[in-house]
Amino acid sequence: MGKPVVAVIMGSKSDLPILEGAFKVFESFGVEFTARVLSAHRTPVEAAEFAANAEKEGFKVIICAAGMAAHLGGVVAAHTTLPVIGIPVASEPFNGLDALFSFIQMPPGIPVAAVTAGKAGGKNSALYAISILALSDEVLAQKLKEFRAEQAAQVLKADAELQLSLQK
Amino acid sequence: MGKPVVAVIMGSKSDLPILEGAFKVFESFGVEFTARVLSAHRTPVEAAEFAANAEKEGFKVIICAAGMAAHLGGVVAAHTTLPVIGIPVASEPFNGLDALFSFIQMPPGIPVAAVTAGKAGGKNSALYAISILALSDEVLAQKLKEFRAEQAAQVLKADAELQLSLQK
Amino acid sequence: MGKPVVAVIMGSKSDLPILEGAFKVFESFGVEFTARVLSAHRTPVEAAEFAANAEKEGFKVIICAAGMAAHLGGVVAAHTTLPVIGIPVASEPFNGLDALFSFIQMPPGIPVAAVTAGKAGGKNSALYAISILALSDEVLAQKLKEFRAEQAAQVLKADAELQLSLQK
Amino acid sequence: MGKPVVAVIMGSKSDLPILEGAFKVFESFGVEFTARVLSAHRTPVEAAEFAANAEKEGFKVIICAAGMAAHLGGVVAAHTTLPVIGIPVASEPFNGLDALFSFIQMPPGIPVAAVTAGKAGGKNSALYAISILALSDEVLAQKLKEFRAEQAAQVLKADAELQLSLQK
Amino acid sequence: MGKPVVAVIMGSKSDLPILEGAFKVFESFGVEFTARVLSAHRTPVEAAEFAANAEKEGFKVIICAAGMAAHLGGVVAAHTTLPVIGIPVASEPFNGLDALFSFIQMPPGIPVAAVTAGKAGGKNSALYAISILALSDEVLAQKLKEFRAEQAAQVLKADAELQLSLQK
Amino acid sequence: MGKPVVAVIMGSKSDLPILEGAFKVFESFGVEFTARVLSAHRTPVEAAEFAANAEKEGFKVIICAAGMAAHLGGVVAAHTTLPVIGIPVASEPFNGLDALFSFIQMPPGIPVAAVTAGKAGGKNSALYAISILALSDEVLAQKLKEFRAEQAAQVLKADAELQLSLQK
Amino acid sequence: MGKPVVAVIMGSKSDLPILEGAFKVFESFGVEFTARVLSAHRTPVEAAEFAANAEKEGFKVIICAAGMAAHLGGVVAAHTTLPVIGIPVASEPFNGLDALFSFIQMPPGIPVAAVTAGKAGGKNSALYAISILALSDEVLAQKLKEFRAEQAAQVLKADAELQLSLQK
Amino acid sequence: MGKPVVAVIMGSKSDLPILEGAFKVFESFGVEFTARVLSAHRTPVEAAEFAANAEKEGFKVIICAAGMAAHLGGVVAAHTTLPVIGIPVASEPFNGLDALFSFIQMPPGIPVAAVTAGKAGGKNSALYAISILALSDEVLAQKLKEFRAEQAAQVLKADAELQLSLQK
Repeated sequence: MGKPVVAVIMGSKSDLPILEGAFKVFESFGVEFTARVLSAHRTPVEAAEFAANAEKEGFKVIICAAGMAAHLGGVVAAHTTLPVIGIPVASEPFNGLDALFSFIQMPPGIPVAAVTAGKAGGKNSALYAISILALSDEVLAQKLKEFRAEQAAQVLKADAELQLSLQK
Repeated sequence: MGKPVVAVIMGSKSDLPILEGAFKVFESFGVEFTARVLSAHRTPVEAAEFAANAEKEGFKVIICAAGMAAHLGGVVAAHTTLPVIGIPVASEPFNGLDALFSFIQMPPGIPVAAVTAGKAGGKNSALYAISILALSDEVLAQKLKEFRAEQAAQVLKADAELQLSLQK
Repeated sequence: MGKPVVAVIMGSKSDLPILEGAFKVFESFGVEFTARVLSAHRTPVEAAEFAANAEKEGFKVIICAAGMAAHLGGVVAAHTTLPVIGIPVASEPFNGLDALFSFIQMPPGIPVAAVTAGKAGGKNSALYAISILALSDEVLAQKLKEFRAEQAAQVLKADAELQLSLQK
Repeated sequence: MGKPVVAVIMGSKSDLPILEGAFKVFESFGVEFTARVLSAHRTPVEAAEFAANAEKEGFKVIICAAGMAAHLGGVVAAHTTLPVIGIPVASEPFNGLDALFSFIQMPPGIPVAAVTAGKAGGKNSALYAISILALSDEVLAQKLKEFRAEQAAQVLKADAELQLSLQK
Repeated sequence: MGKPVVAVIMGSKSDLPILEGAFKVFESFGVEFTARVLSAHRTPVEAAEFAANAEKEGFKVIICAAGMAAHLGGVVAAHTTLPVIGIPVASEPFNGLDALFSFIQMPPGIPVAAVTAGKAGGKNSALYAISILALSDEVLAQKLKEFRAEQAAQVLKADAELQLSLQK
Repeated sequence: MGKPVVAVIMGSKSDLPILEGAFKVFESFGVEFTARVLSAHRTPVEAAEFAANAEKEGFKVIICAAGMAAHLGGVVAAHTTLPVIGIPVASEPFNGLDALFSFIQMPPGIPVAAVTAGKAGGKNSALYAISILALSDEVLAQKLKEFRAEQAAQVLKADAELQLSLQK
Repeated sequence: MGKPVVAVIMGSKSDLPILEGAFKVFESFGVEFTARVLSAHRTPVEAAEFAANAEKEGFKVIICAAGMAAHLGGVVAAHTTLPVIGIPVASEPFNGLDALFSFIQMPPGIPVAAVTAGKAGGKNSALYAISILALSDEVLAQKLKEFRAEQAAQVLKADAELQLSLQK
Repeated sequence: MGKPVVAVIMGSKSDLPILEGAFKVFESFGVEFTARVLSAHRTPVEAAEFAANAEKEGFKVIICAAGMAAHLGGVVAAHTTLPVIGIPVASEPFNGLDALFSFIQMPPGIPVAAVTAGKAGGKNSALYAISILALSDEVLAQKLKEFRAEQAAQVLKADAELQLSLQK
């Protein structure tokens, strides 16, 4: 096993189901990753430290998933110049609008880029990380194109099936 | 001049107008305060350090004003056990709903208590800090009661003036 | 049993589950509290009376939990200069946005400070009350620091477990 | 001048422009009214007292205009069984959504009925009060029907003018 | 059985559960009412006709419950000068915010007054109607005061029970 | 001048600026239209009558622009089976979200189709009406394709200019 | 079986339940339609191609149902001048507000007209398509009037049943 | 001048002011970029073509700025596997919430990562693009660290100035 190039951080273990889609994508693309539970509020020192050392440790992209006042992406981005991808996690009672605003509305100077809120965001964060890694990895770039083709094929298959079922 | 007991932190100098109401309240109550520009994202180390040392430095309450993905309150609260009061600052285009959610939706374990968004919040943050300080300062407690009485008198005066003006 | 220093008021008995997290925190910190059902609308006289007498009765902090047009915090704050902490309770159909605005948008002059909406708010209101009480109670201040350390340790343990489980 | 039958209460003198539309309607219908500045938070005792005595004083309907965490309607309704009409006043930064929720989401048992937020609400609150008074006042009932007819005529006149202007 | 003085209109039979709270209130107060299913969109002629004749038929107040683009209140108010009370009914996917805006934001000239969205609104609409009827019915006025006293007593009883249960 | 095939209805003369974009489109396409001020609430009888007779009068499409609790589209659609296009008009304080919900959330059975809120909606409502008329009018269909081509050319021209300006 | 005149496109097979109401309407009116699964993002080439050829293939109206960042309507409208009807599909966590904005806020020049979000939108999209087709099909126009009459009769029947059940 | 590695696309020339912050960042970092006006709706073929060829042309990152139903990011991402960064542009009347949802809520399989809405987003999109390019460009990585240090220094200078000004 090689060194992980992507760090997936969640603010709480309860965010794990959102990230399983990301893990599956990384596994199917053969991208090494590490996953951490680090809270911006409950373990601020460790979260900052991890971010500050991430580049030295060989990470290229950091994915952060958190809910509520989701400061994790901002805290990590404040301590690293690596690209940080945020996944707003929905929770009661505001259904993710709180997390969405907390991730996306970063002030000028320290960007975090956020993907789809909720489960779709788990998968999309991994695909986005891969699109970044693929810029300097032709094998990965090729796999990403194949993934896209396969994905399109599945839609077309669903389309064919629907048309068949309606003709009956 | 005594040692400041309240620290007023703003995420950017542009938040200053929101805080002038707080400064006036502290001055009229004779409460020593210090004001700092410390960004959760652009100066995360200094912000964390300030919070971590605040209790030792003699501060009793910390007020944080910030806009957008307003992580300042959370970052400060993560590094201190002093009470942290947040003021959501409105900014384009989401008019403070982003800052409100970022301040208020702290996860269980690290509270921040937020007051009114916008200008009213500047004044209210100072009055709230004073209500905390007044718990162990009888002079301040007395002044707070006088402030309330004076404030009520102003409403009643406006009421009398309105009734007069409508009778004409 | 000593005299209660924190009053926990709920607008309706149905808010009780939100407050159980607060009760647990107070019990584990050894803070005496009293809990009351007092409605800003259905028992306005009793609610105002309680607030007006709270300081004399020895209370230092008042926590108010309510849903919908949650006026309880404002009514209580209008009759006392003690610090009032609000917990917006979510209910159908607006999921707590109504209660959040009703608590937080107090006009200048009478502050209420609100914590996280929903269940997390129950726990956070108690921790915030303790951070206020701890300003003049060193034992409590020490316990709060230990609570934080223990809380951080739990996150780090969850982190270690996650990394182990992913290595399999 | 007869005794006022409608009380128009505003939480702050700054709400006056919203209410001028109401005053004009009452004047053109010949309905006696009184206007008061009474704050649910800054003068809670006076606001409650006014509400508690309103019926005895001969008032039949109470109109309340307030912004932000607009508790005025709820506080008044809690102390009287007269019908209370609320006007949500918009203010920075949440543009009246805070006041709307604070007025309308009254818990079961103590109703407040709210009309249009903002300036249109001033006029509509007066028309609604008149529709209530008209139930036992035939002259007023007749005037209300004439007002409606006149209002319709104005729309039809605007319609005719528009069609003319487009034919040129 | 006397002639009904309140008309309760729902836009669809599916709104019935919201209105059962209103029916119970009317029954316990001995207020005669009629209930109708009339759709602003599917039976516009009948809805307009009902509204236009309501005053002649002896109705004093009209309650309208509807969800989605809830035009029922506006359509009824456009054809009568009787006071119209609206109940915004929550439905998928916008949870009543659509109905709330459709009821409350009536243009200047034709008011509808809306009460609490959802189930609480059923009960509150009836209590509000009764507060209007009570202006010219002393028995009803007295019953309303007794209802309030009984309601307060229930809160105080819940309060006493809570305090007992916490002392154990 | 032929008979108008499109009716453009506005709830108030103040909606006229929103509709000027529509008028320009119709004029440039040579589509005859009529414009009316008809209020769902202030002139409900005339609005219903117009809608009920529209088909007989030779209209093929009806455009409705209104703000606030924008019932105009629903009232018109309730009285005709012609396609009705709604334009949500933004107004203070809720910036068109009220009108958007009032237009779009029509209950099952009586559809209204809404286009862009605000000024863009004026233009788009006319283009949408033309896309409907073009189904049985080849000249119009051809003009619509030319409009699209011209519109694309303008974007490409802006693109070319931007690239030139950046090269300097 | 004749040639389909309506194309019903969904962005994902999971949108099918929303569209079943549309299929039923088309079947009961005897309108030929085709249904396709075409994703604006996963099969952009096929979606664009379908739209570009739709007119030539004999389609008159295109219905698009999609959730989240629902670009399907816009992508289709960009490649055809046929009228495009959008159905915003609700999904976690933003309950359709994302899809509503994505459908309705089309920039000036390329309109999409959206109907009710969610299930009601399925039925309404079909009825709206039929109202367009009926402009040049008298049989369909007649059926639409009969559908309306039948629908009104059902409401009146529910009304009669309700009144009966309340008299018991 | 070298070949551009970043493409900055705007949906309309009116989005240019939002992007000027991005241009300045690229210029100060010495990153070659190209800027294009390409509309997802008005020039869909050109937009798709540009995206499809972007990788071959040597682009590494694509920035898309658009308002309203902002499909530009999704259309571009659908035709390329390069990382796409979205900037939600605020416009009347929904102040960017429409553009935010349109950018961020991409369905699983085709990610777009969005940064801050509005002007701050212009600057942040460029800094994010640079953080991606810096992964394989040590000079850029170094410059990014210097930018961060300089930015922190500016905050600390503002902090020092504020403290001075308050001591007077």
